[in-house]
Amino acid sequence: MKKPAETTFNNLVCPLPLAHKDRIVISHGSGGRMTKDLIDTVFARSFSNPTLAKGNDFADLLLPNDNQHRKLIISTDAHIVNPIFFPGGDIGRLAVSGTVNDVSMSGGEPLYLTASFIIEEGFPIADLTKIVESMRQTADEAGVLIVAGDTKVTEKGKTDKIFISTTGIGLAPADKDIGGQCAQPGDSVIISGSIGDHGIAVLAARNELGFRTTIQSDVAPLNKLIKSVAESTTDIHVLRDPTRGGLATTLNEIALQSQVSIQLIEKDIPVKPEVKGACEMLGFDPLYVANEGKVILILPENQAQKALQALRAHPLGKDSIIIGKVIEPAGTPRVTMKTAIGGTRIVDMLTGEMLPRIC
Amino acid sequence: MKKPAETTFNNLVCPLPLAHKDRIVISHGSGGRMTKDLIDTVFARSFSNPTLAKGNDFADLLLPNDNQHRKLIISTDAHIVNPIFFPGGDIGRLAVSGTVNDVSMSGGEPLYLTASFIIEEGFPIADLTKIVESMRQTADEAGVLIVAGDTKVTEKGKTDKIFISTTGIGLAPADKDIGGQCAQPGDSVIISGSIGDHGIAVLAARNELGFRTTIQSDVAPLNKLIKSVAESTTDIHVLRDPTRGGLATTLNEIALQSQVSIQLIEKDIPVKPEVKGACEMLGFDPLYVANEGKVILILPENQAQKALQALRAHPLGKDSIIIGKVIEPAGTPRVTMKTAIGGTRIVDMLTGEMLPRIC
Repeated sequence: MKKPAETTFNNLVCPLPLAHKDRIVISHGSGGRMTKDLIDTVFARSFSNPTLAKGNDFADLLLPNDNQHRKLIISTDAHIVNPIFFPGGDIGRLAVSGTVNDVSMSGGEPLYLTASFIIEEGFPIADLTKIVESMRQTADEAGVLIVAGDTKVTEKGKTDKIFISTTGIGLAPADKDIGGQCAQPGDSVIISGSIGDHGIAVLAARNELGFRTTIQSDVAPLNKLIKSVAESTTDIHVLRDPTRGGLATTLNEIALQSQVSIQLIEKDIPVKPEVKGACEMLGFDPLYVANEGKVILILPENQAQKALQALRAHPLGKDSIIIGKVIEPAGTPRVTMKTAIGGTRIVDMLTGEMLPRIC
Repeated sequence: MKKPAETTFNNLVCPLPLAHKDRIVISHGSGGRMTKDLIDTVFARSFSNPTLAKGNDFADLLLPNDNQHRKLIISTDAHIVNPIFFPGGDIGRLAVSGTVNDVSMSGGEPLYLTASFIIEEGFPIADLTKIVESMRQTADEAGVLIVAGDTKVTEKGKTDKIFISTTGIGLAPADKDIGGQCAQPGDSVIISGSIGDHGIAVLAARNELGFRTTIQSDVAPLNKLIKSVAESTTDIHVLRDPTRGGLATTLNEIALQSQVSIQLIEKDIPVKPEVKGACEMLGFDPLYVANEGKVILILPENQAQKALQALRAHPLGKDSIIIGKVIEPAGTPRVTMKTAIGGTRIVDMLTGEMLPRIC
């Protein structure tokens, strides 16, 4: 069995050897190509329905018999990050932010959260209390209510400390259609700030960098940032947070869903020098490193400046910038990038697993 | 550290020694007194809000600006049952039924489910496919849609095979108030069939009985059974499924929530001979053994026959029977039982953990 530490980061060149096709491997949880394969071959076969088929990180469902024509927005995520405390956050803040953000990416307003805990026997109650308190603070920050929960305990050695699954429920106007399927040629692609901070901060907390860094995770609830930009322009096509698999994988998903191509400008993609340094040292590409407090926003070019203004007025969006555009696909939808030295390269989806248990 | 196999079942006589007060122990996941303690001391302190404070297994929240005055019903559960396949069901059927049932206990109609999977590296994809297909079948049986999901993978040895968290979302009329807080003196207490089947079936699957048994888990979605009884009488006070902690713990919760006492008649409580035999052999009390396809229904005595008729007309409720009544509390609310030999004994909440990882 391939061990996570040995997992090669080779999404750009060689395909990951798909040994053990009959067993779950770490890469099935990467959020990249193998996660998609697992969804297509196992989950979609049984669960197939129009809502799931949209391929967004949230479900949008017309609220039955509603005089205001609203949609219920529902999203769920399991959180298994290791370690559970890291610079800039912890598994509790991550669990709340991750699900608040997924609901927000519909353009809807997250209202309620549920949280289910799976805890290993022997886990310190002081740590649980810290995590729970961090969840409350993050929920307060987002203005959502934790309304239901569950706790299960396993024997020692059967769970790695603590796992938290959260589900978010919100409402959105039914006439607003925002999602990965809505990108159109001519649209601008905006990112709300620097990429890769979360992934590198978690790696640092695992002492896998071999040097000290001041990088903090960007983990944060983005619903208020998104609300402010949504009020500034009514014409947002896509909102999505580039978490597992990073910016590159998320843009590939959007390109596929919308059947468009996306052209990035490498020099415009914000990467903090410490993140760049850590990535160079480890042989990682920041395009594939997870974020937990950034949003990709795709909308018509003539709306982009208005959106940027609104984003930059919020602390979580102050470094927002246009990083590319949506174009007609020449054949297969794909993501390409004009490199800093003037070339163009294909930016593929993540294959395999670069950073297991990053969220 | 106390190992689950050594956990003593002593809820009736001696208090469980609360060593390791600063660490999570298996009993914190029992659904009994220690789970309640953990909720009170850790979760409620941070998450406190009126919805959670009601102490039901579902949240009911007025749907904002709704012309039909409906409530959103939300419930969540983590499922860590061991083994994942057992006579009469599997972790997939359990995960769907458990959450469908929790939503149904509000008197509301479950509509949507989310599912988040935490899977151990090396888990057979054939088993995952069986579980996912079982979830679909159970969702079809209940008439609910699985609308969102997530998959995470951990290294080998960091998760015990597979854990599934499900969240259910439904709607209920806002003017209907059904919950553990609504029992009234004079009400009848009905159970929809025999108790302890699920717990003993799972034990048998663990080969912990030392003999062969034909007992099958009762795991099933109860929403259609409940819908049919709710249509027959408009005056249901309490619906609750006696899962972890069994009938005894669930009735104690209701007694506390409603500040009433409950008087059971031992001879009327249906227990299958095989379950009774297994319990006698193992020193268990069937009152504390988990059920996954039974509902406790509490309503005015003059409505009880109508409710029984409706319940018995449905295959899942054919053995429904009145097992006791709600009375004014003489001091502290408590559950008592007239025993078969004519005495009366106090039926306490489960303390400690009788059957870890039963759901």
